[in-house]
Amino acid sequence: MIDVKGYAVQDPHSPLAPFQFERREVGPHDVQFDILYCGVCHSDLHQIRDEWGGSIFPMVPGHEIVGRVTAVGDHVNKFKVGDLAGVGCLVDSCRHCANCEDGLEQYCFNGASQTYNGREQDKKTPTYGGYSNLIVVHEDFVLHVSDKLDLAAVAPLLCAGITTYSPLRHWKVGAGHKVAVLGLGGLGHMAVKFAAAFGAEVTMLSTSPSKEEDAKRLGAHKFVLTSDPEQVKAVTGYFDFTIDTVSAPHDYNMYLGLLKTNGVHICVGAPPTPTEVLGFNLIGGRKSIAGSMIGGLPETQEMLDFCAEHNIVSDIELIPMQDVETAYERMLKGDVRYRFVIDMSTL
Amino acid sequence: MIDVKGYAVQDPHSPLAPFQFERREVGPHDVQFDILYCGVCHSDLHQIRDEWGGSIFPMVPGHEIVGRVTAVGDHVNKFKVGDLAGVGCLVDSCRHCANCEDGLEQYCFNGASQTYNGREQDKKTPTYGGYSNLIVVHEDFVLHVSDKLDLAAVAPLLCAGITTYSPLRHWKVGAGHKVAVLGLGGLGHMAVKFAAAFGAEVTMLSTSPSKEEDAKRLGAHKFVLTSDPEQVKAVTGYFDFTIDTVSAPHDYNMYLGLLKTNGVHICVGAPPTPTEVLGFNLIGGRKSIAGSMIGGLPETQEMLDFCAEHNIVSDIELIPMQDVETAYERMLKGDVRYRFVIDMSTL
Repeated sequence: MIDVKGYAVQDPHSPLAPFQFERREVGPHDVQFDILYCGVCHSDLHQIRDEWGGSIFPMVPGHEIVGRVTAVGDHVNKFKVGDLAGVGCLVDSCRHCANCEDGLEQYCFNGASQTYNGREQDKKTPTYGGYSNLIVVHEDFVLHVSDKLDLAAVAPLLCAGITTYSPLRHWKVGAGHKVAVLGLGGLGHMAVKFAAAFGAEVTMLSTSPSKEEDAKRLGAHKFVLTSDPEQVKAVTGYFDFTIDTVSAPHDYNMYLGLLKTNGVHICVGAPPTPTEVLGFNLIGGRKSIAGSMIGGLPETQEMLDFCAEHNIVSDIELIPMQDVETAYERMLKGDVRYRFVIDMSTL
Repeated sequence: MIDVKGYAVQDPHSPLAPFQFERREVGPHDVQFDILYCGVCHSDLHQIRDEWGGSIFPMVPGHEIVGRVTAVGDHVNKFKVGDLAGVGCLVDSCRHCANCEDGLEQYCFNGASQTYNGREQDKKTPTYGGYSNLIVVHEDFVLHVSDKLDLAAVAPLLCAGITTYSPLRHWKVGAGHKVAVLGLGGLGHMAVKFAAAFGAEVTMLSTSPSKEEDAKRLGAHKFVLTSDPEQVKAVTGYFDFTIDTVSAPHDYNMYLGLLKTNGVHICVGAPPTPTEVLGFNLIGGRKSIAGSMIGGLPETQEMLDFCAEHNIVSDIELIPMQDVETAYERMLKGDVRYRFVIDMSTL
């Protein structure tokens, strides 16, 4: 076994603290890499605090992981020592169900292995995430990362990036479409960048006037202050798609009214409590509410390659490991533009 | 003006009773026809009792109307005296919005004119429906009806038929798809017939074991008793589409679990109260909840032509006008297989 240093929480009420643990030796198909940067995702906090239930402790969070390969197994042919590498939300899946065969490992029928707060495919061994100095992952779940981009700012692409890229691609969003983005945070700012890069007209919907300038800098063409009934009325029946990145409970019905006939309200944020939906709001315009969860491995690589080609990264604030608890507090207040990334050299 | 005999309710608490009223003279583009049969839709009762709000009284219900043309305007070229004719849920729309131009008059941005409990495009003149001896409608909103089919059994196609045909066509349901139909009533029995005719594998979901035999006679290949957890478990992640015809409040979440990845739960019934939807149930499988409302005029004609070609009609029970109140009571108990149709010669 390999000794690893990281930060973990021991239960939902304790702070993150230094934690020593072990990872498996590098197997024939494994890639080992030194973690250089790890993004701080809102879901880290949900899971640390067991807000979704079923959390596994001790927990080493982190699923926006980039670094440099230090060892590869005998049968690894996709990576060599010295390569840049990334790992997102998944480290394994059953590999034989219809979804895995379609490259939709995130929807594996037999349960994909989450990068942390999950279990390996033996359904026993707990997984530990990227708030640590190194990781060992099967090469099929490791992504290639371009050296053209700022590596720290690439980290959030592994979750926030693919979570917004995937639905935009699945619903074939592009030129001629009007897209609303709901929520300007880690996910929302990537949704704006990608939707604009795909050629859509992008409108940021926000309750906060202070977001307008930044939304436009990120690529949004319009801004609608949703607390102003006049501004909301002006976009009634206007959008083809809404990318809803909000994970706090909120009412979908108002937003359904902003969709065109055949419009789709796509949820990538997951409120922990049910939302009330009035059937008439769907029926009167053949509208849909859909959900989408991260992305499969082939699409994640496609997204990273697209970002390298179009010079897209996340807007980040780099922090030392010791400041993560403070970062959580600021994240809860929306005080981050737009993703904290841990500099793992500070571990 | 033309004198018309019908049945109306004067307020939400009064029974249907004979009612004399007037319709406009036949204009240059109008078709007048004697109503021979009119279907009894569950929505008739919702609107009579003002359960959806905003009902207009006195109200002559009925939007599943078939009959024979008795007069046509000077500029009518689609119909001649003696033709069979049908009118569904719409008698007019703005005709110039993008949806009207796309043949999606049911989603007219400026508000289509409902056949009853609505207003003409002057936004003033109330519309009166098919519980009456004749109707005058612009030829563009009159459908051709084949003489190959039992005319009384054609009537419900104008609402129950198109309401289920349209989403099945929009979502391109056909061979290779597994379709669940929720609710075996007026809409549900047509959903079974159409989905089977389009080549899909059809499963009736019901809480009532007594529905199995009939569902299979109508074309369902499988039957799942939703009160039996074992039967429900066996179809977890099984369906591509659910056609949900239930207009009583019910929980969508259990049914979302029966969908495959990318599955769509399509609501054609409209519960009057909001339904609680848990975002995780959409996100974990890229699933959607969608709505669909009747169909546009071109598609309604397509549906009638398809029915003539494939010998599809509704299963009906023919009743005299005087028995409609009793029919409502039986409809509320689900005691009809599967649509009451009024024989208008009894008026």
